[in-house]
Amino acid sequence: MNYYGEIISRLIEELARLPGIGAKSAQRMAFHIVNLPKERAFSLASAITEARDKILYCEVCQNLTDVSPCQVCDNDNRDFTKIMVVEDPRAMVAYEKTREFKGFYHILHGAISPLAGIGPSELKVKELLARLGDTEVEEIIIATNPNIEGDATALYLSRLIKPLGIKVTRIAHGVPVGGDLEYADEVTLARAYDGRREI
Amino acid sequence: MNYYGEIISRLIEELARLPGIGAKSAQRMAFHIVNLPKERAFSLASAITEARDKILYCEVCQNLTDVSPCQVCDNDNRDFTKIMVVEDPRAMVAYEKTREFKGFYHILHGAISPLAGIGPSELKVKELLARLGDTEVEEIIIATNPNIEGDATALYLSRLIKPLGIKVTRIAHGVPVGGDLEYADEVTLARAYDGRREI
Repeated sequence: MNYYGEIISRLIEELARLPGIGAKSAQRMAFHIVNLPKERAFSLASAITEARDKILYCEVCQNLTDVSPCQVCDNDNRDFTKIMVVEDPRAMVAYEKTREFKGFYHILHGAISPLAGIGPSELKVKELLARLGDTEVEEIIIATNPNIEGDATALYLSRLIKPLGIKVTRIAHGVPVGGDLEYADEVTLARAYDGRREI
Repeated sequence: MNYYGEIISRLIEELARLPGIGAKSAQRMAFHIVNLPKERAFSLASAITEARDKILYCEVCQNLTDVSPCQVCDNDNRDFTKIMVVEDPRAMVAYEKTREFKGFYHILHGAISPLAGIGPSELKVKELLARLGDTEVEEIIIATNPNIEGDATALYLSRLIKPLGIKVTRIAHGVPVGGDLEYADEVTLARAYDGRREI
């Protein structure tokens, strides 16, 4: 039996398709939405429609943006010799917040994962190579996630780009600052050892 | 700095207002929505608009529904002598799934909570009393949540309804079936002791 009626059930189903939202959270969200003042509910719906409608990929870095080139790429004060390659916009924002990196970014929108059927052609790799042709890029910093897919992507890109005479680096893996060695996993500890530097 | 541009930031903000959704989940959801096929994103937005637009309170039990009276109230085969009072539609559905209760429901849409400024007038109490006037109700089963607010609501309702000559009961509190005594809290254990029955 459909206890909630068709309209609420449809809303629950739609919400449950969002990432990280299970059946119970979707129910909670649906009842919350139904109890919102009308203008608040409509404002949420219009934010969804507008975002999907107006967002485009930045012609330079492939970030999702409402103006192209995006705010980051449209900045002559940044370092033209460096491009950091990340998997998604959130990784880019995470690095921007450090205020340490002054170069440009390139967003792949994913990582190579043969199991999930994602190869280089599903990622923004072609667009990255196009950028290397007409700029004075000296270094590509690969900041894909520290997991199998991220590592595979890093290896693939380095093999593709190194022959062009451009330096390819990968961000360091090791014990997180403020972390406790006791809680670090073996792989991280091994990588931290491999990456040791003289002090 | 607004790293994501205005449109995505607005969507993230709107999503972060939903219950149980923090800043990180809202970001994940926003990027998921922006990457959806257009018709899927628009379908989500329209489900929200439609639900908020068309959902009404059932004139009998105050459940949220698209037809009034709702499916549950519009059923002559149920037991007219019993009304179970719950805080929200999810509690009603939870009881419906047990297939144990064959009476009718009344949804309060909350519980008395002086700290949150919610008194009886914010709940569907008036509507409950109206139902007692013109039906042959013999028993009100109070199934508000087992916490301070739910207990206060149960006490308030019992004082209001008992003088009308109607039996008022409360669902049992005790150790959950399949649970382990070791992990039950003191209050639950005390309630389970108080509610002991001869076997």
